[in-house]
Amino acid sequence: MVQTTMQHGDLLISGLVEYSRRVFPEAKVITWTGEGTREASFADIGDQGAQIANALTKLGVARGDRVATFMWNNTEHQALYAGVPSMGAVLHTLNLRLSPEQAVFIINHADDKVIFVDASVAPMLSQYLTGTPNVKHVVVANGPVESLTAPEGVTVHAYDDLIAGEPTTYDWPKLDETDAAVMCYTSGTTGDPKGVVYSHRSIYLHSLLGTSTSGMGLSNHDTMLAIVPMFHVMSWGLPYAAMMAGATLVMPDRFLQPEPLLAMMAETRPTLAAAVPTIWQGVSALLDAKPQDITHLREVVVGGAAVPPSMITKFDGYGVKIVHAWGMTETSPLGTISRPPAGVEDEDAAFAYRVTQGRFPAPVAARIVGDDGQEQPWDGEARGELEVSGPWITGSYYQPDGNVADPSKFDDGWLRTGDVATITPDGYMTIVDRAKDIIKTGGEWISSVELENVIASNPAVVEATVIGVPDAKWDERPFVLAVVRDEADADVEAHRKFLEDRIPRWQIPERWSFVTEVPKTSVGKFDKKRVRQHYADGDYTVLGEPDA
Amino acid sequence: MVQTTMQHGDLLISGLVEYSRRVFPEAKVITWTGEGTREASFADIGDQGAQIANALTKLGVARGDRVATFMWNNTEHQALYAGVPSMGAVLHTLNLRLSPEQAVFIINHADDKVIFVDASVAPMLSQYLTGTPNVKHVVVANGPVESLTAPEGVTVHAYDDLIAGEPTTYDWPKLDETDAAVMCYTSGTTGDPKGVVYSHRSIYLHSLLGTSTSGMGLSNHDTMLAIVPMFHVMSWGLPYAAMMAGATLVMPDRFLQPEPLLAMMAETRPTLAAAVPTIWQGVSALLDAKPQDITHLREVVVGGAAVPPSMITKFDGYGVKIVHAWGMTETSPLGTISRPPAGVEDEDAAFAYRVTQGRFPAPVAARIVGDDGQEQPWDGEARGELEVSGPWITGSYYQPDGNVADPSKFDDGWLRTGDVATITPDGYMTIVDRAKDIIKTGGEWISSVELENVIASNPAVVEATVIGVPDAKWDERPFVLAVVRDEADADVEAHRKFLEDRIPRWQIPERWSFVTEVPKTSVGKFDKKRVRQHYADGDYTVLGEPDA
Repeated sequence: MVQTTMQHGDLLISGLVEYSRRVFPEAKVITWTGEGTREASFADIGDQGAQIANALTKLGVARGDRVATFMWNNTEHQALYAGVPSMGAVLHTLNLRLSPEQAVFIINHADDKVIFVDASVAPMLSQYLTGTPNVKHVVVANGPVESLTAPEGVTVHAYDDLIAGEPTTYDWPKLDETDAAVMCYTSGTTGDPKGVVYSHRSIYLHSLLGTSTSGMGLSNHDTMLAIVPMFHVMSWGLPYAAMMAGATLVMPDRFLQPEPLLAMMAETRPTLAAAVPTIWQGVSALLDAKPQDITHLREVVVGGAAVPPSMITKFDGYGVKIVHAWGMTETSPLGTISRPPAGVEDEDAAFAYRVTQGRFPAPVAARIVGDDGQEQPWDGEARGELEVSGPWITGSYYQPDGNVADPSKFDDGWLRTGDVATITPDGYMTIVDRAKDIIKTGGEWISSVELENVIASNPAVVEATVIGVPDAKWDERPFVLAVVRDEADADVEAHRKFLEDRIPRWQIPERWSFVTEVPKTSVGKFDKKRVRQHYADGDYTVLGEPDA
Repeated sequence: MVQTTMQHGDLLISGLVEYSRRVFPEAKVITWTGEGTREASFADIGDQGAQIANALTKLGVARGDRVATFMWNNTEHQALYAGVPSMGAVLHTLNLRLSPEQAVFIINHADDKVIFVDASVAPMLSQYLTGTPNVKHVVVANGPVESLTAPEGVTVHAYDDLIAGEPTTYDWPKLDETDAAVMCYTSGTTGDPKGVVYSHRSIYLHSLLGTSTSGMGLSNHDTMLAIVPMFHVMSWGLPYAAMMAGATLVMPDRFLQPEPLLAMMAETRPTLAAAVPTIWQGVSALLDAKPQDITHLREVVVGGAAVPPSMITKFDGYGVKIVHAWGMTETSPLGTISRPPAGVEDEDAAFAYRVTQGRFPAPVAARIVGDDGQEQPWDGEARGELEVSGPWITGSYYQPDGNVADPSKFDDGWLRTGDVATITPDGYMTIVDRAKDIIKTGGEWISSVELENVIASNPAVVEATVIGVPDAKWDERPFVLAVVRDEADADVEAHRKFLEDRIPRWQIPERWSFVTEVPKTSVGKFDKKRVRQHYADGDYTVLGEPDA
């Protein structure tokens, strides 16, 4: 047997921090102040990261302890990304948009000892602290400590005072690359939030992808506007990928509205930007009202929700390429990214690729699995639940007494994404629907999303959602809950007629109800869970007559 | 303590093979035939790789066994790169330019059981086989089996017959990522050749760098002309990086002369190419005689030896960017790559960066260590031996009874490169000299390479090499061995005068000898080992008089 002569070379975040600090003095972290910018070099970030590690060591934070952040994207948050995992502690990024119950649950579940908070959101955190007895220290950044009201037993620090005078170096421990580095809870719509714990290894590999042509392609020559929050799947890995690439980061802090976003673009001229579709919808509306050249952007990476094809066209009009990506908290997040393959020059042909969720990078293995548990072919037609595996894909959820791989979420080591997808013979994946939303009727599947889109393309419809409801003969049939323009449009037969030329006959829904508003979640998505419950409770008047 | 929830996701070559086969049907391996091209898709390569694995299993090749190749860059070699490590065997690439003694030593040291050989070089291999009793099978590709003469006990196979009818799938074993995958011997100028054994992990990570903006930046839209041989540090990792990127590979087979290289460029229009400087010197000479548009090349990666600045300028003239890279067999090989940093727009300023060996990518940690064992600063001035570490850097040399980390080659886990270097404050490394060639005089160092360059800039000099020789007062002083244009130029004082304005006074050599030719190695470098031996033996007439 031959043994490798290669060094192991543990893949550690401290390696990234020291690397960026030493090799890229020209790269910066630029934070928006509301009126302009403030800048830090990666050397400054490394200094501050070491100061944080020294200060936390004094506070008694040891290897494996959880240090939470309740912060926007800014310099101080970047320094915490650098220092906390490098010292062997676990950075826990708290979502600023949690309900108070969720926040308290998560802080206690993760057993956070210290929380760093931006003064602007400190009043929110103050409300939670009475319910989180294990939190011993809160550190307030970017504003007065008085923004926070803390119960007895919690020591409150000012960020600047805490790190002042601390050494700007730290003898980073030689961790194992599979040690926990960062944790993040999914805000699922059902059950308690679930903890995902990224390792140094998973983050390092994901950062390599960030600099890869199969990923973001981030380089030393890029300036990345990281709009996606650092509390949301590590801002899609950008804080670490930028360290590896030596790319400049532009951090919007709390200024996530279209006006400041366009102002910071004008000032910093980013080459790349990353955010969810709703952000770009707002930016687009403002651009139309008040044109501004944004062609300094060579690509805009959009994920977190499906990108409407019209948005891609819209941005083509601004001279900017939208790149569609797919991922989830459980996938670090980069799962797929959509750029047309080599050899496709024709714009229409390219567009057909660009609207898909895209191709998997090499480290992400994928398969689609049918209802019968059988793997489905990559023919662009066959549908199945998307399952993925790889070194930055979660294999369980965090529990203090041992992580758990619930079979409803994991299948023989693969993550069940809960998405139903097709994959083309050349590896382009399209999400058809959420698995729980797909309508299974007479052995065939109807995508609720596709059906909603066709129904909503009727000018008489303001908005519409579709759920599957029990049917004695077909197992399930679609039920439509729609808002129409005029009272006269509340006409089931007219709607069915509209659909006749547009979808197969057997897909046309019989059951309709017209309401003044479709229930929505806190982030503005159709709340199908509530629609299902209302339907089951008989809260809707069901119009139309099942004809089958 | 928090445990990561991430999957381990072993980084295996079989993963790359299956990925490229499934996701990139449009990418190809194109082999030059002498008159034109033959093509295989990555799916074909995957099929052939599995057929090889099935055939080798029948021949009794088991996990950890060594399978050697004695081949050019071509489709069949690519299929062996795919199949052999994926099945758990170790691919041993034999250098076609070894001396017979070295070849026999290496085959026996590695204990190769099977050798795949191109018919065009089979006569050469035939000579070695009488000295390698453990080789049981030889497989001849791309020509008649009769090209090989094998001793009794060796079964000779035709490549096509061996794999014909074998299944095109193989149930790849779940290896550990630290398992041996490929081995390669360094052809050092001193002592026996030394074995370096790459792991699946090291190759996979190096491939990620191949697709990274910090490395080759290879993408699905690239066609890479891989001139650097597959028997030389895995063709700089290109066969595997191409699988990961979905890039098309152009393989020159045995046609490495300028004419066929330019013919294959005209036909395949590569966007990237990789080779050592001597190849590009030949290509350049032919281009000047017979101009051809080569602007389809967006970058030419040159490594293996320092790139003369004049070559960079020359290729700028063709509209093609040369990118300087540094590495060695022990570093997989990518150690540094030189592109100017962000913000440097001025061409002269950029040029000053382009002539350096470049920046380290994140996974390669580097330091320079002085004679006193102290780490030297990154100030662009301080010199020291370059030491590197990381997941694709060797930490020992292969020995059948256990790998050995000789302290003359390794320093506390770091690889001693044997190169003396400087590093700038922004991380750009320049190789000053080989450590063993640097001249240590009165506590100061003289780079033999720099001194040679200045001496050779005298029009009277055809070529010159410099070695350090013992000196009672200064420990060492430089000795110059030069070839001059005319007899009249054999004038020590004239040469010393020429140097006066060009280098510090204390560096000017006293000892000179004028000869008709400087001894050279088989690859055309100055053979300083022989020059040293001749000097010690008193074979040279030493002119000039030490004046200090």
